[in-house]
Amino acid sequence: MPKLRIVPLGGLGEIGKNMMVYEYGDDIIIVDAGIMFPENDMLGIDYIIPDFQYLKDKTHKVRGIIITHGHEDHIGAVRHVLEEINAPVYATPLTLGFIEGKLARDGNLDTAQLVTINAGDTFQVGPFKIEFAHVSHSIPDCVALGIETPEGLIVHTGDYKFDHTPVDGWPTDYAKLAEWSSRGVLAMLGDSTNADKKGWTPSERVIDDAFDKVFRDAPGRIIVASFASLVSRMQQAAEAARRYGRKMAFAGTSMRENAKIAIRLGYLDLDETLMIPIEEALKLKPNKVVLMATGTQGEPSSIVGRLSVGTNRAFDIKEGDTVVLSSHPIPGNEEMVSRTINRLFQRGANVIYDPIAPVHVSGHAAQEEMKLMLHLVKPKYLIPVHGELRHLRQHACLAEELGIPRANIAVVENGRVIEFEKGKMKLAERVPGGYVFVDGTRVGEVSSAVVREREQLSRDGVVFVNLVVSHKDRRLMEEPEIITRGFIHAEDSESAEMLSRARQHITDRVASANGDLRSGLETSLASYLHQQTRRRPMVFVVVNEV
Amino acid sequence: MPKLRIVPLGGLGEIGKNMMVYEYGDDIIIVDAGIMFPENDMLGIDYIIPDFQYLKDKTHKVRGIIITHGHEDHIGAVRHVLEEINAPVYATPLTLGFIEGKLARDGNLDTAQLVTINAGDTFQVGPFKIEFAHVSHSIPDCVALGIETPEGLIVHTGDYKFDHTPVDGWPTDYAKLAEWSSRGVLAMLGDSTNADKKGWTPSERVIDDAFDKVFRDAPGRIIVASFASLVSRMQQAAEAARRYGRKMAFAGTSMRENAKIAIRLGYLDLDETLMIPIEEALKLKPNKVVLMATGTQGEPSSIVGRLSVGTNRAFDIKEGDTVVLSSHPIPGNEEMVSRTINRLFQRGANVIYDPIAPVHVSGHAAQEEMKLMLHLVKPKYLIPVHGELRHLRQHACLAEELGIPRANIAVVENGRVIEFEKGKMKLAERVPGGYVFVDGTRVGEVSSAVVREREQLSRDGVVFVNLVVSHKDRRLMEEPEIITRGFIHAEDSESAEMLSRARQHITDRVASANGDLRSGLETSLASYLHQQTRRRPMVFVVVNEV
Repeated sequence: MPKLRIVPLGGLGEIGKNMMVYEYGDDIIIVDAGIMFPENDMLGIDYIIPDFQYLKDKTHKVRGIIITHGHEDHIGAVRHVLEEINAPVYATPLTLGFIEGKLARDGNLDTAQLVTINAGDTFQVGPFKIEFAHVSHSIPDCVALGIETPEGLIVHTGDYKFDHTPVDGWPTDYAKLAEWSSRGVLAMLGDSTNADKKGWTPSERVIDDAFDKVFRDAPGRIIVASFASLVSRMQQAAEAARRYGRKMAFAGTSMRENAKIAIRLGYLDLDETLMIPIEEALKLKPNKVVLMATGTQGEPSSIVGRLSVGTNRAFDIKEGDTVVLSSHPIPGNEEMVSRTINRLFQRGANVIYDPIAPVHVSGHAAQEEMKLMLHLVKPKYLIPVHGELRHLRQHACLAEELGIPRANIAVVENGRVIEFEKGKMKLAERVPGGYVFVDGTRVGEVSSAVVREREQLSRDGVVFVNLVVSHKDRRLMEEPEIITRGFIHAEDSESAEMLSRARQHITDRVASANGDLRSGLETSLASYLHQQTRRRPMVFVVVNEV
Repeated sequence: MPKLRIVPLGGLGEIGKNMMVYEYGDDIIIVDAGIMFPENDMLGIDYIIPDFQYLKDKTHKVRGIIITHGHEDHIGAVRHVLEEINAPVYATPLTLGFIEGKLARDGNLDTAQLVTINAGDTFQVGPFKIEFAHVSHSIPDCVALGIETPEGLIVHTGDYKFDHTPVDGWPTDYAKLAEWSSRGVLAMLGDSTNADKKGWTPSERVIDDAFDKVFRDAPGRIIVASFASLVSRMQQAAEAARRYGRKMAFAGTSMRENAKIAIRLGYLDLDETLMIPIEEALKLKPNKVVLMATGTQGEPSSIVGRLSVGTNRAFDIKEGDTVVLSSHPIPGNEEMVSRTINRLFQRGANVIYDPIAPVHVSGHAAQEEMKLMLHLVKPKYLIPVHGELRHLRQHACLAEELGIPRANIAVVENGRVIEFEKGKMKLAERVPGGYVFVDGTRVGEVSSAVVREREQLSRDGVVFVNLVVSHKDRRLMEEPEIITRGFIHAEDSESAEMLSRARQHITDRVASANGDLRSGLETSLASYLHQQTRRRPMVFVVVNEV
């Protein structure tokens, strides 16, 4: 009798968020395939995908890829997975719409098998009978999964909150969750993102009041910055625009494309009397316009990023503009975001952001909602996922308070296999569960060794020395050539003198050298430079004998 | 008749925080001389000091350096200022104790003139009559300044909060603030740090309850991590230790040194029955010990930083330890701090941090306190300082709500001169008000151009090519040598192939080259590598003719 194996794969800090594997005998399903953004010290990396080498020799066993919702950290790596694994992708209409858009841009839409499943529907994938239950989150058409396995029913919550008044009027499907519990839930894998936030996450509706005040008071243009996938925020901005007689336009492609998909599929209600092209919007009186833009994280290439430094092509910030940052900084981006806010102020805009006004709410359940989920689903075992280790621990504490025994809670890291056999959970082996860097065109080519080299280069720069010595007696035939970058400002006179002393040092060493000239010089020059500057640049010497 | 000139100098993001100049005719005083820590993209920089070149040709006019309190961002650059400016330093006993300690370590204590002034005292410096008023903050012996100038009374709040139950039992001197207002305050320069925080900042006393719960529940050792200068937190940990029969020890030099100074000067009440050396503490039963340590920001060289990665020499984290992070992340450090918390959990510790429990409070006034300060001091003009531009704007909004006309509020950036003449404020010229990098031994040698080079190196690395060509016909005499760092993983087979194609590309170009071989090759190789990898390493070619 095979076992049920559950494997969280590939997160960065967070566990069980970007990809999860469910395995039973010769059948595997993958749940979600997302990307992560590099941390501040992962220099030069574009993005990161889960390391799914665990599946390398099992690709033929993968029966399907199930996606819970359309956020980048859940769909961004679908194309990388499809390059290695030929399996159908199952998701709700909007999620699939976003995936389709991405695959169309990246060129492998033709070969992908995309299967639309509506929230509430049930479908079979190998030995797994999967049921989608609608949950509210910060993107529409998000689902939790009920996965009926030969070992029992597993509930995979995905990202969720219990918003009683969501903008799309579609609350979490409490009945389905309760129905699952009535069938008996073996284990729940639950979102832990906000496990250290007390109380309830506010409803998206609180933003209506904040928007209303902004639209009432703003003397000129309003620029609402948000995530490109935050469809409900577009709806809220549109409703406020309608109330205050403003026209709305999208600045920037990604948001416009997503809005188009959402309108086409019926998730966004924007009519033609309200929406105008950006070129027209820029010709209207400032107090008749609201522009939607991306760039809430201060990304230099985004609209808001460019507006903050004055490099946006279509338009600039002007005195009287009101910029609403309808977002929170993603952890690690706090510094960039506050710098962007300050720069927008500097350029004459008024900037509204949380905590100045409640213009954003989290999409994740806070503690009381997490308790409600546990009570609704009543799992025998809990596997906290979707969070950093500290959030998982906190989720475990909450569950213990609710009476789930500590022995029935598995706080694990990515790559730890969790097995269920005859209704019992146990931790099994560790498999590779890390991540792979994507930089430029290629995946995995930049290793952490390369990033460490970049780190070293970034700290104190680099020094190259080119030497020409005579083959006969190793005499220097030319003045040593020194190239430095990121080390000292060579035009500064003190630095120029130091370099000239370094040249002398090299000359002396060449004269007295024996053994390997190159590595001897590299060592001695490195220590000379350190003694002179207390810095440790990378030092390279090439010796050309003539 | 000269004017009064006020110049905020040298902040990084924040304005009027690290150094302020008051100038009247031929007399100048400096208020505070602090350092800043580099932002995440200021690669390889150790710390930053204010650029005070505005004072370069006025050093003989400087009558004194007044320090409001002993935090690094207010005292850290005193030694750099004293290297250029010979003037006495005025501060309260504890602040001066900390400055003395720092100067003793850095070697120029002998020449420094340090003048102790107690809170409540008045002293004359040139034409300025200065009065110290005690304020509560997150370090003892902190003062606001009343500066009687020929133009009128200026109140410089420094960092403050209105804590009614501070740990040292010494609340803000409300009477003095009110007395100043009764004399008529021309202008106030007020702390804006928490201008976007509603309500009141909680009293330090709330931490007692949180500590009590931690000490009651902790099964093993307790490690309280805090800032080395947070004397009141040491006191609170000591009181909890006494209540629960634990001994206390300091791990780490900076905190131990500061504690010594604070004990000697009477700001910290620790007796010998409680305090033991760290070596002894490590031999006691775990539940009989509390260790105080630094490293709340996850700094790799700090005790907590080393504990989190297992490289601390004296002791390691063990199962059952409780680590209390009695601090908040400094903006920009959020990522590092959460990584540290996760690693401590990984090593078996339980970690208590805000918001899990209220084990830290801010040292700065929130909105209601800022309003109270404005009502107590009743300034005619307000210059919001100590904060980012967004906080200054918010402070200005609060002041407007309280009836200060917008025209009487000056929100400026560093380097903007504010003049007072015949009781009227006006903005004057801009002077250099930036910052200077300190990296290694020397100040100002690393320019922003060098940091930009480091940034470029850190993004895609560096490629160095060494060529030997014949002088006669520019034929390649040897296979081109290519050195790369931070670009690709050269041992990876795909990368090795790419490099060998790049060598072929170089060989072809050399054969067909005319004009400047070196720069032609650098350009063509850079574009070849970009086309192959979508990355842009720095490329250097040296051509040696033989």
